[in-house]
Amino acid sequence: MPSSRTKSVFVESCWGRRSPDVPLWFLRQAGRYLPEYRELRQSASYRELCLTPELAAEAACLPIRRFGLDAAHAFTDPLLCLEAIGREVVFEGGAPSVATPVRTRSDVEGLVFEDAISSRLPQLEACTRTAVEALGTTPLVAVAGGPFTLAGYLVEGRASRSHRHLKAFLYNDPTTAHTLFEQLAVVAADALAVQLRAGAKAVLLVDSWAGLLTARDYRDFVLPYVADMFRRLRMFRAPGIIYVNTAGHLVDLLVRTEVEVVALDWRHELESIRTRLPENVSIMGNLDPTVLLGPLEEIRERVIDVLIQGTLYRGHIMSLGGGMLPDTPIEAVQTLVDVVRDFDPRLQGWSSVRS
Amino acid sequence: MPSSRTKSVFVESCWGRRSPDVPLWFLRQAGRYLPEYRELRQSASYRELCLTPELAAEAACLPIRRFGLDAAHAFTDPLLCLEAIGREVVFEGGAPSVATPVRTRSDVEGLVFEDAISSRLPQLEACTRTAVEALGTTPLVAVAGGPFTLAGYLVEGRASRSHRHLKAFLYNDPTTAHTLFEQLAVVAADALAVQLRAGAKAVLLVDSWAGLLTARDYRDFVLPYVADMFRRLRMFRAPGIIYVNTAGHLVDLLVRTEVEVVALDWRHELESIRTRLPENVSIMGNLDPTVLLGPLEEIRERVIDVLIQGTLYRGHIMSLGGGMLPDTPIEAVQTLVDVVRDFDPRLQGWSSVRS
Repeated sequence: MPSSRTKSVFVESCWGRRSPDVPLWFLRQAGRYLPEYRELRQSASYRELCLTPELAAEAACLPIRRFGLDAAHAFTDPLLCLEAIGREVVFEGGAPSVATPVRTRSDVEGLVFEDAISSRLPQLEACTRTAVEALGTTPLVAVAGGPFTLAGYLVEGRASRSHRHLKAFLYNDPTTAHTLFEQLAVVAADALAVQLRAGAKAVLLVDSWAGLLTARDYRDFVLPYVADMFRRLRMFRAPGIIYVNTAGHLVDLLVRTEVEVVALDWRHELESIRTRLPENVSIMGNLDPTVLLGPLEEIRERVIDVLIQGTLYRGHIMSLGGGMLPDTPIEAVQTLVDVVRDFDPRLQGWSSVRS
Repeated sequence: MPSSRTKSVFVESCWGRRSPDVPLWFLRQAGRYLPEYRELRQSASYRELCLTPELAAEAACLPIRRFGLDAAHAFTDPLLCLEAIGREVVFEGGAPSVATPVRTRSDVEGLVFEDAISSRLPQLEACTRTAVEALGTTPLVAVAGGPFTLAGYLVEGRASRSHRHLKAFLYNDPTTAHTLFEQLAVVAADALAVQLRAGAKAVLLVDSWAGLLTARDYRDFVLPYVADMFRRLRMFRAPGIIYVNTAGHLVDLLVRTEVEVVALDWRHELESIRTRLPENVSIMGNLDPTVLLGPLEEIRERVIDVLIQGTLYRGHIMSLGGGMLPDTPIEAVQTLVDVVRDFDPRLQGWSSVRS
């Protein structure tokens, strides 16, 4: 007997098709907080996990197996694509760095955007395909780094609170900066496209550091290329999700990319920001990740608070408003999962209509 | 002949008394970007500068002498007060740290809030008085660290992107966390009061890291003590200024402290955020500090853009939306100063009325 067609609660929620189930997943859901991940890492480095199809697939499956989360993300590091364009990335102690930062126009001209990136794509495709097969009915979300964040690592060499080298570049040589952002958006689009071809059901662009830009600079330097990237991916008919940290001042611009889902960091109350988002956008997030370091009763109360605010949107994918912290207790995550499973937005209809 | 009474453009602008002059000053205006500061540091450590009245006064005067800025800030490090309550602070390479972080309730109970802080106050008063005398008609602004930021260094031990130890503390032992914030606000109030008694003309509370809190947690854990602190200082009739980084989501709460001035980081367009601030608040800021790493023409254009937006407020103190970067070229600062001096808001009346 052929099996019935099913729809993923996660993907449907991205499209804004209402359902009584609130989907749940996390950024960095396959990570050090998970005992079985720590075990997996005993036999392989982070880099090996990312680049070996069976290991990457296994890592992607771990949090699904334990918690029955509603989506997995490809276990890949968005910075790896920088190696394809000519810059080695060093992963040490969870703080990646680029050994030889890009600082001048000729440095940018020396990057190999043609062919080089495509040489890495078969490997990414193999990893994704293996994971998609292993995941069964659980959808896999394609992930890539946003152009500002990729450029940040390329130019700063590492995470930076000011991103002053990249910003100085942007002011002093805007033409080259535009070229850099444009090319990196193409790199991201290629990486997402290959994951979609291998079976991914949604795309997530993580441009964590772009919130360091003023609205003006984001609009002028980054937005056009991100919007173009999502346009190019539209043929795959997979919902698009964008995440930028400290992006309260950019919300009006993020929706111009015509993504289906905006993922917000924990600072913003979903209720307060509601009026700044159009009706045709779903929301992802946004429990403060540090809440999971608190007592279980506090976690329950705060998760319900976020869930109730989420009912104000056409679709709400419950998640953290940032990556899962490595020292998060596993019982805390289980509590969060249980609360989301027990939550029925239909029973919250009245309490969510606030004055 | 007795001299006529004069009013400071800076202080008047804090109070919202309109004038054709836009006052200008910077956070960290006495710092490494200044050649004469680097020279001063050859003969004394940062700590010695902070604690020696003649040296602290000299440091405070340097940027005034060069640029004729409209206010000076006391050359003191807000973290030094942590030593008065029992925790040694190490200043190395510009990244301060607390050798023995506070992590438990008994650690907090071990802090010496009584007497200890007052034992340091005569020294702070001496430093401030010497600076006030040296500055002549230039007003000195009293500076202290906000309770969340002080607690952050105490509990995390150093700057932290997540502040997860402090936040975990806040969830797991809210009573002790409240005590900590309350006591640290008293420490800040005492430090500001003594600077006011020594002649400071305005107070600035720098709670840089408080923007990591959700609105809910800021409202519940920090706001009451900050509001109380400003209330206690009201008797000095000096305007109050509050600065919190990444505080877009907290603006509505910050004004509840009834400060005269809200200082915003560079992300937020003064024009966009105008409607979220009441009429009786002046604005401080908020050029992106990295703009000063760009070409002079770009600096001119962007400074004018901020100045025009500033005319929408009852008062605007021009400044950076963050601390001055150590590698800022001195000509860039001079250009900014020149543009502000040449700016006449009366000539911008029409261009600032936008649709």
